[in-house]
Amino acid sequence: MPLYLDIHEQAPEGLTLEALERAHRVDLDHQAKHGVTFKQYWVDLAARKVFCLLEAPSAEAAAAVHREGHGLLANRIYEVVEGH
Amino acid sequence: MPLYLDIHEQAPEGLTLEALERAHRVDLDHQAKHGVTFKQYWVDLAARKVFCLLEAPSAEAAAAVHREGHGLLANRIYEVVEGH
Repeated sequence: MPLYLDIHEQAPEGLTLEALERAHRVDLDHQAKHGVTFKQYWVDLAARKVFCLLEAPSAEAAAAVHREGHGLLANRIYEVVEGH
Repeated sequence: MPLYLDIHEQAPEGLTLEALERAHRVDLDHQAKHGVTFKQYWVDLAARKVFCLLEAPSAEAAAAVHREGHGLLANRIYEVVEGH
């Protein structure tokens, strides 16, 4: 399954870790029907950046989960390989 | 220890996974003296993007490892919190 890293360049102003966790849980509720598995995510609240690492059959499937979940789409998504 | 995610926006043209692994090993050789611990990295070779996740005492320490290692500095570095 391809691995993707997406970048949300401008998270909502005033975002908190708690609100992000809630939004993430909504994503998790929608991931299975798109064959998506969220693996990790990171946030820089001050810079309003969020990064999600996920497995998905396609970039479109990854975007669909965000769209149907909280509606906050990533600005960029990259198909990545994990180094070791 | 703060956690950082850095982004290399324009990896060298023709970069291969093998060359990236070698560059990463050079980073690992330099990390201890700066108190840095590389945790994971990901690459999109087609888009020439590299993402590094690392613990460091500061963003400057993280940059110093890249500078003294292979000299390829990240364009952006964010202090992040890992979601769960």
